[in-house]
Parts: sequence; structure tokens; C-alpha cells
Amino acid sequence: MQLHKDISLAVIKRLPRYYRYLGDILDDGISRISSKDISLRMDITASQIRQDLNNFGCFGQQGYGYNTKLLYGEIKKILGLEKQYSMIIIGAGNIGQALANYINFQKRGFNFIALFDANPKLIGLTIRGIEIYDVEYLADYLKANHVDIAVLTLPKSAAPDIAERAINGGVKGIWNFSNIDIKTPDDVKVESVHLSDSLMTLSYKLNEKEILGRLGTKA
Amino acid sequence: MQLHKDISLAVIKRLPRYYRYLGDILDDGISRISSKDISLRMDITASQIRQDLNNFGCFGQQGYGYNTKLLYGEIKKILGLEKQYSMIIIGAGNIGQALANYINFQKRGFNFIALFDANPKLIGLTIRGIEIYDVEYLADYLKANHVDIAVLTLPKSAAPDIAERAINGGVKGIWNFSNIDIKTPDDVKVESVHLSDSLMTLSYKLNEKEILGRLGTKA
Repeated sequence: MQLHKDISLAVIKRLPRYYRYLGDILDDGISRISSKDISLRMDITASQIRQDLNNFGCFGQQGYGYNTKLLYGEIKKILGLEKQYSMIIIGAGNIGQALANYINFQKRGFNFIALFDANPKLIGLTIRGIEIYDVEYLADYLKANHVDIAVLTLPKSAAPDIAERAINGGVKGIWNFSNIDIKTPDDVKVESVHLSDSLMTLSYKLNEKEILGRLGTKA
Repeated sequence: MQLHKDISLAVIKRLPRYYRYLGDILDDGISRISSKDISLRMDITASQIRQDLNNFGCFGQQGYGYNTKLLYGEIKKILGLEKQYSMIIIGAGNIGQALANYINFQKRGFNFIALFDANPKLIGLTIRGIEIYDVEYLADYLKANHVDIAVLTLPKSAAPDIAERAINGGVKGIWNFSNIDIKTPDDVKVESVHLSDSLMTLSYKLNEKEILGRLGTKA
């Protein structure tokens, strides 16, 4: 028996943005806010905001709007940010090291506990006190340590095999920075950051007018 | 007079993925491919693929499929990847340095020519031969050098002001890694990589079943 409707990916993708804006609104000392005021800040229509939030319950009151702090807390819960996550980074190159050095994730409950690499020059070094292990040690490490999320910051050629090893070791979340799509069983969730795709999207946008103009005159 | 229809953001976001998969297909030595075969690799329906590509012209032939190399070349053109772009990175911290060190962008025509930072300890250093300048020098630098894209890898508090300075200096593309949405004039394009949002999306996915279950039983 399904007790709830599925939430679309588009809605899910907007939740962190709501959370971010509500954090700013709280920082601005605004304790009560209407969907219209949120809408003005976020470039989303007020009705879209109400519809999105109604997926998760009725947080607003007609004529009153939202209690900023309560709504912020509810979205925090929906995003699973009240929990702590243990994370490993596989691939201690530029991006892997940058993520390990980034302390804001830890503030939100995302804790890096180890890095892995195949490069002997990196193995044994530490970043912010987090040790870089030989990737060959991954399976054993996962037997001895609970890991929620594996961050893949390694070349695409190695990524599918390493992802499989992480999943066999019990990892349920993959944060994928490698330039390939990772396929996983249903109970393992993937979120990808494709930097090259993003940069190509920007170059498309920069050229869109010219490209569509060319197509248009051809048509 | 509008000669073409607008292309939806969802289609645009899929283009780099087509390009990536077609590159792999070419590497596999496959010179001719049907939308159905692309579909099997990409988890997109064949009709969606045909529809997406038809936005930009008719690249396929009934009963033949697509010539891989030709299609790859066309998508390359559509994405604006036949051009060269000069880029600066503003914010030479962890992520800024990681991007500067990443050589694959250059192979695609995205060339970093300078970094900027406010930290005196970083100013004057070089990364892969690319100098880090004082951010106060940004306006003068932009007068003397043509820059297509500014990469914002700096704290959100500084990002809107620095983005404005870059735009005043003639930059037409912003690749935004700061944890804030950047508003720009219509002729300046923004593409954002919100790492925190992405990680929160992953934590949502990891908790979705539990969260929706809770809502369901409440309902």
C-alpha cells in the first residue's frame, strides 16, 4: 500500500534552494514570511512554492504565511540534515583534496573520515588530519567502518569498478564527480556533479542566440 | 520576428550528456547508431532522443540511424565547443585551485588565463603557470584583456559584488561555485554549481523513503 505520492525530481532539486534562502531570511531577522515574499527573492512563483511545500505537509497558514524558523526546521528534516553522515573520498587529486579541505560540509553533518587513492605518493599523507589510504584497502576499511556516502573524485575509467566495490562494502550513497554516469541498485542513491557538463551548458548559453539564429534562417 | 522556437532548459541540460555518450560511442569504434541503441546506454527513451535532437535539425535518417561522427560534430557545434574561451578564476582557494589544475577543460577550449584573490599570501603565486592577481586589479585587468567567462569560487558574501565588477568589465559568462544565486543582465549567462545543494539532494534521496513514509502514515 502506497501511502504517499512520489515527489518529482524537480521539486527535490528545489528543496536545498528553499533551505538556503530560508537560512538567509532567518539571518535577516525575518520571523514570518509569505510565499509571495519568498517568491520575490527566489524567482519562483508563489503558487509553485506553496505547491512544492504542500508535498511535505501544510506549513503555512492562510493570511499569516510561514513561520520562517519552523519552515526552515521542517525543510532541514525533510533534507535529512538532522543526521550525521560518515563519508569517504575516493580519489585524492585536486577535486578530492578541495572537498576534504572544505569545512562547511562538516558543519552540516557531513563528516569525511578517510580518503583513498592509488598513487603511492599520496598514500599515508593527511588532509586536515584525514588520512589517505591505499584504495586496495577499501574493502577492508568498509568492513571495519560504517560509511554512508562515498565521494567519487577519480577518472571515469576507474569509477564504475570502484563504485561497485564501495556498494559491496555497504555504502548507500554515491556523490559522483567522475565524468561518467554511475548505475547502482535501487537502494543505493547517486547524485552527480558533472563539472564538464556544467561548463558545456554555459558555453551553449553563451552561443544560444547565434546557434538558434543559424537554425532559424536555415528553416 | 522569431525564426526559431525556444529550447527548454531540460533539453539544454541533456546536450552535454549526449556529447559525452557519443564521445564514448566513437571511442568504442561504432560509426553508426540508432536512437534505440543510444537510448539503451543513456536511460532516455529513443523518442525523447529523437525529439531532443530534432530541435537542432534532422541529423538522423529513417532506417539508418545516426552517423556517430557527424552527430558528435553537430552537437559539438551546438554546444559552442568549436570556439576558444578565455577564463579567469576569482577566488584561489581550494575549489579555485582545483579547477585551475584541471587540464581537461583546456583540451575542450576553455583556457584559464588568470586567477584573482584577496589573500596577500596567495597573490603573486602561480598555479600551472597561471598567476594569482590581487582582486583589486580585476577592473584594470579586464580593460587590458578579453575574458569570456569568470569562474566565481569565492564566499557568497563577496560573490554578488565581484560578479558585478566582472560584468562591468565585459564578462559575458559566469560559472558560479559560490553558495548564492547570481542575478545578471539578460546578455550575461550564468551556470551554477551548488555543491552544498547537490550534497543535500543526496541526503534527501538517502532519507526519502523514511520521510515520505512518515508523511504517509500521518496523512
